[in-house]
Amino acid sequence: MDAFLVVHPPNLYYLCGFSGSSGALLVGRRATLLTDGRYTIQARQEVRAARVKIGPRWQESLAALLRPKGRGKLRVGVEAAHLSVSQLAALRRAAGRRIRWAALEGQVEALRRAKDAEEVRRMRAAAALASRIVGEVVRRLHPGMLETEVAAEIEYRMRRAGASGPAFETIVASGARAALPHARATGKPLRKNELVVLDLGAILRHYSSDLTRTVYLGRAPSRIRTWYAAVLEAQQAAREAIQPGITAGEVDAAARGVLRRAGLARYFVHSTGHGLGLEVHEEPRLARSRSERLEAGMVVTVEPGIYVQGIGGIRIEDDVLVTERGSETLTTAPRELLEI
Amino acid sequence: MDAFLVVHPPNLYYLCGFSGSSGALLVGRRATLLTDGRYTIQARQEVRAARVKIGPRWQESLAALLRPKGRGKLRVGVEAAHLSVSQLAALRRAAGRRIRWAALEGQVEALRRAKDAEEVRRMRAAAALASRIVGEVVRRLHPGMLETEVAAEIEYRMRRAGASGPAFETIVASGARAALPHARATGKPLRKNELVVLDLGAILRHYSSDLTRTVYLGRAPSRIRTWYAAVLEAQQAAREAIQPGITAGEVDAAARGVLRRAGLARYFVHSTGHGLGLEVHEEPRLARSRSERLEAGMVVTVEPGIYVQGIGGIRIEDDVLVTERGSETLTTAPRELLEI
Repeated sequence: MDAFLVVHPPNLYYLCGFSGSSGALLVGRRATLLTDGRYTIQARQEVRAARVKIGPRWQESLAALLRPKGRGKLRVGVEAAHLSVSQLAALRRAAGRRIRWAALEGQVEALRRAKDAEEVRRMRAAAALASRIVGEVVRRLHPGMLETEVAAEIEYRMRRAGASGPAFETIVASGARAALPHARATGKPLRKNELVVLDLGAILRHYSSDLTRTVYLGRAPSRIRTWYAAVLEAQQAAREAIQPGITAGEVDAAARGVLRRAGLARYFVHSTGHGLGLEVHEEPRLARSRSERLEAGMVVTVEPGIYVQGIGGIRIEDDVLVTERGSETLTTAPRELLEI
Repeated sequence: MDAFLVVHPPNLYYLCGFSGSSGALLVGRRATLLTDGRYTIQARQEVRAARVKIGPRWQESLAALLRPKGRGKLRVGVEAAHLSVSQLAALRRAAGRRIRWAALEGQVEALRRAKDAEEVRRMRAAAALASRIVGEVVRRLHPGMLETEVAAEIEYRMRRAGASGPAFETIVASGARAALPHARATGKPLRKNELVVLDLGAILRHYSSDLTRTVYLGRAPSRIRTWYAAVLEAQQAAREAIQPGITAGEVDAAARGVLRRAGLARYFVHSTGHGLGLEVHEEPRLARSRSERLEAGMVVTVEPGIYVQGIGGIRIEDDVLVTERGSETLTTAPRELLEI
């Protein structure tokens, strides 16, 4: 490979510090960050270890950069998971026949899987912020409050604390809506005797947290307590399973096994967790029969849940750092069933 | 074409009402929405005019759906601008040799360019919300307030008013930072005698607004007033140029001409505007020498700006609906230089 073209914004940030939403980094004998006039000053301020080239569109600057000086073919790798079919076709047209494009996958993501000390510091701070906020907001929940008001409270508190924003659209799902794993907050008011699932995360200095707690408005009936206890046991089993060398599938199986023994497996409709870092969904995925092994420095979510149509849902999620000797849970909000 | 595969979430929502973040719609003799177990209930509630198929991954459900019944080749179009090189390779592997994949571009986007009456209603509401909030927040700006606090205020008010979130990370850029067109809000406090650029938008019932106002903290020196007047004149000229039949490039030229005559063209480092709707950046782009003609029902931003390193920036942005006879500006916040 003569050069490698990076286009995925989190990968650009990781490799050279550029945080704009449009640009590309060509890594060859030297590294060049290509972007447009909106980012001239920002790129000069942010970019390390690469020169900066500004043009009307980075695609054209790239073509100019690759224009034949010699006569031999050049092989240039691209991020196949992040470059669209159209973008690759446009690069082919612009750069001419001298370039042979090679589809590569996951090169930068592989570097990003294990976090270094500075990244762990930032993720610890993002996790602490989410933990604090969920505690503050849970205390303020009351029947009549709208789901969107709860989401507004959560996101406002993140922002005030310095977050650049929520890591994803905050989920507030109450009553029967809690049976939708990815429910957006709506204008529905919270009511007595309902489950409420709060799933939130903050982006702090570019790194994300991701935390879910489930509360009951009122005194939970015994069926809900039993279900909650099973989900909590599943979550704990998965967290305890985490250590260097275990496979992602084994962590998933630890949670799934508990729910199966409780007769709840059919309600657990997603995987146990996912990597977390500059993006809210990264490798590794903690899913059925995934054979990748966990390594020290990885941060993963652990978030089993059950979803029962017409009744509601229960999910408990924490962010867990794989350490040399086992694991450390970065999110610290209490995990017992909160009845309020 | 025997079938067309839609994967871009805004296009899925537009065609069948599904608002999940992962899925695909195969449109052939009938339409099928493919997604995974996280969205079972949501898909049943949302999807119109298509059947729903749930599987562990939509890619596998798709392969099963396309598996040969007859013997002839099938041609299936894909959204080349939204399908990654990896995804297309995976589809090729999963679906076998019977399928010929064809890269198509902009099919659904072309349908989305002109908004219908219901879409205009929603965009009008999103624009009104942004207009109201910028007015409320501008009155509360004061030296010492952090950029991130201003952004938090803005986003909180959107959320409380029912927005599902900001249409993009709210820009609050004060002082020299206002010279960065895409500046994120930081922990910098606002200071006396600075320009502050506020660029915000709300997503309301899936449709976005996008609004920028620039204020001066204190009494603006005459150079700033002159610059502001030029940007305002450029913005007005572009808005007044908008009508069915004009080209996108002509609208851009209207703004650029004013700034050129004012000797400020070199500080106008981006294009004049862009389409707006389910996404915050849509076709058409109001940029240099673009030949697409505007049509009634399109909504575009008009946002010329100037950026002077070391001093700051000025941008004024509104959302403009192309009507049968001319245009209507949907965002209504006052446009005069606010000195506070």
